[in-house]
Amino acid sequence: MSPTLELACELVRRRSVTPQDQGCQELIAERLAAIGFTVEPMPFGEVTNLWARRGTEGPLLCLAGHTDVVPAGPPDLWDSDPFDPVIRNGMLHGRGAADMKGSVAAMVTAVESFVAAHPEHPGSIAFLLTSDEEGPAIDGTVKVVERLQQRGEHIDYALVGEPSSRERLGDSIKNGRRGSLSGFLTIHGKQGHVAYPHLARNPFHAAAGALAALCAEVWDQGNAYFPPTSFQIANLNMGTGAENVIPGQLEAQFNLRFSTELDPETIKRRVRAILDRGDFDYELSWRLSGHPFLTTPGELVEAARAAIREICGIETELSTSGGTSDGRFIAPTGAQVVELGPLNATIHQVDECVAVADLDQLHRIYGRVIERLLLPTAD
Amino acid sequence: MSPTLELACELVRRRSVTPQDQGCQELIAERLAAIGFTVEPMPFGEVTNLWARRGTEGPLLCLAGHTDVVPAGPPDLWDSDPFDPVIRNGMLHGRGAADMKGSVAAMVTAVESFVAAHPEHPGSIAFLLTSDEEGPAIDGTVKVVERLQQRGEHIDYALVGEPSSRERLGDSIKNGRRGSLSGFLTIHGKQGHVAYPHLARNPFHAAAGALAALCAEVWDQGNAYFPPTSFQIANLNMGTGAENVIPGQLEAQFNLRFSTELDPETIKRRVRAILDRGDFDYELSWRLSGHPFLTTPGELVEAARAAIREICGIETELSTSGGTSDGRFIAPTGAQVVELGPLNATIHQVDECVAVADLDQLHRIYGRVIERLLLPTAD
Repeated sequence: MSPTLELACELVRRRSVTPQDQGCQELIAERLAAIGFTVEPMPFGEVTNLWARRGTEGPLLCLAGHTDVVPAGPPDLWDSDPFDPVIRNGMLHGRGAADMKGSVAAMVTAVESFVAAHPEHPGSIAFLLTSDEEGPAIDGTVKVVERLQQRGEHIDYALVGEPSSRERLGDSIKNGRRGSLSGFLTIHGKQGHVAYPHLARNPFHAAAGALAALCAEVWDQGNAYFPPTSFQIANLNMGTGAENVIPGQLEAQFNLRFSTELDPETIKRRVRAILDRGDFDYELSWRLSGHPFLTTPGELVEAARAAIREICGIETELSTSGGTSDGRFIAPTGAQVVELGPLNATIHQVDECVAVADLDQLHRIYGRVIERLLLPTAD
Repeated sequence: MSPTLELACELVRRRSVTPQDQGCQELIAERLAAIGFTVEPMPFGEVTNLWARRGTEGPLLCLAGHTDVVPAGPPDLWDSDPFDPVIRNGMLHGRGAADMKGSVAAMVTAVESFVAAHPEHPGSIAFLLTSDEEGPAIDGTVKVVERLQQRGEHIDYALVGEPSSRERLGDSIKNGRRGSLSGFLTIHGKQGHVAYPHLARNPFHAAAGALAALCAEVWDQGNAYFPPTSFQIANLNMGTGAENVIPGQLEAQFNLRFSTELDPETIKRRVRAILDRGDFDYELSWRLSGHPFLTTPGELVEAARAAIREICGIETELSTSGGTSDGRFIAPTGAQVVELGPLNATIHQVDECVAVADLDQLHRIYGRVIERLLLPTAD
């Protein structure tokens, strides 16, 4: 059993359902302290965070990840206990195996190997771990980054271990993410009896055209790195269940995943302009979950591409699709951010698993990325 | 206290929340038997119904109504106990005072007066009372009418005591009702993550245009007796509450109140044609609550108009608006049907009430209608 697999099993065994950490970070902190890291727990609220750094010079390469996992759901739906790491058919099974205790383990062992080989390496290596990535993400990475900024500590490269691969290890890395903006819309009508429609005002009837226009709107064409911005109504509710009552209001909640071609204020203005074409009263509030970010090809992207080419023998694809990650909190500081991790096919599902062979490959990939970024003669 | 008011109080005192009768019909049956009616209880299921007839010849004038009431709701919202008949400011208060124990009482006393004056009247008078008008209306009037038809007993005129007046007694009578057709629509999409819209299919996005078209459709222009057919979506629901999930299906329930210009099959065909313009899968089922019916001016409408003109000194308006009533079950037999009753301003509300003076006027109006229809020399 490789050190990476061993550590991954240790981490899976800890029932660190978000926002709990259950000792994962302490375990890692001990190992990092043993190889010369300065270890700094940064708890906020209920959330356990770790900042650990080795070296004081730039550039600073940060390995970022989370120790929390999503709930396992009913354990009897799993082929084995979700918190008992079991290897079957070459796959390590358990909640968090792929998202992302496996990659956290590979990062730790990669750094251990790197430090053993290059105890006097130039630059700095840091770990940024949180137990609040799968939850509201309010007291996690964002707070650690704030503190670093307050004291002038600047991350140059952030390698996030999120499961970015689709069909085989390394086939895709994320060099950016779309922004996420949610809207909460209430359309006001006037309640009444269906038999007396002239005395009532059906909010859906009043707003149907505007809602259809929002769904049909082409927000942008995307760009070289981003797919077009998408708009989706996720919840739409009107009516009390009574069949003879014209409801007094309609509630809709929608979400836009938007590219760097758009900014939140432009989107809000355009949504309001479409709604204002209709003749109805409404209230609209917003929640911005993340600005889009993009790391254009540069040192970090090239290091990741080269490492994957070398270890896996394939050309990786740059992608900005998919959900949000904590990379959104690091990118605004000016850091280059890339997500590179195992296959995402089973994440958040029962029988989540990761190939044991991929964990060891990931250990090697991370090692090569570190070498390429910190050792000037490595490439 | 007039006999009408006295009987109305007696009836209000009985807590006959639908489908209960609580002895109302028994009380009435005794009084009708005492003046020569053949009394025939016709219970179906939990429902108490009464058919009582005086005379064997035609024409048969049927006085129709219900003894059940809608629930009172929290009694402390009322100024006085909803089942304690209280007179304040000339108004009789209590659940059912206006809908329609007051008119049932006026019908009974009107018939008592008429029979006393004309014990050998030509034609026949009948009462059709049910305790299932405010409920599902499955075991009430419809079943009694079925039985009458089975034995060849034909109603010529049905005077229904529903509260038809709007601002003053007699200002409006209903000579028909719109039909009511409900549709239950499920639109199928494909569930997915909002971050991956290309892998999902939002049912509202797919159907928004078709739903807007249904709302905008002009179904007909109505006619001399009916307002235009109206379409209302009463319930529209999509989404689980999760903000990042594209829902897999949308449920909508709508209702059409339709005029005699349309029939249910035509409506169904037109709804499907509009839905079929869109590119989505759907399921659609229907429930027909009532065909539209219309009694064109003739003996019954004229008798009602003349009685109102004589007693109230006003011209009544013919109307087909408003909700359904048990008239829909009697009209298909070929009977002329008119609804004539007190003000509907407080029905189904707290502090339901009816003017004491109106009850006595109603007694006189009903009496004149009976005379005009059964006594050839009355007008």
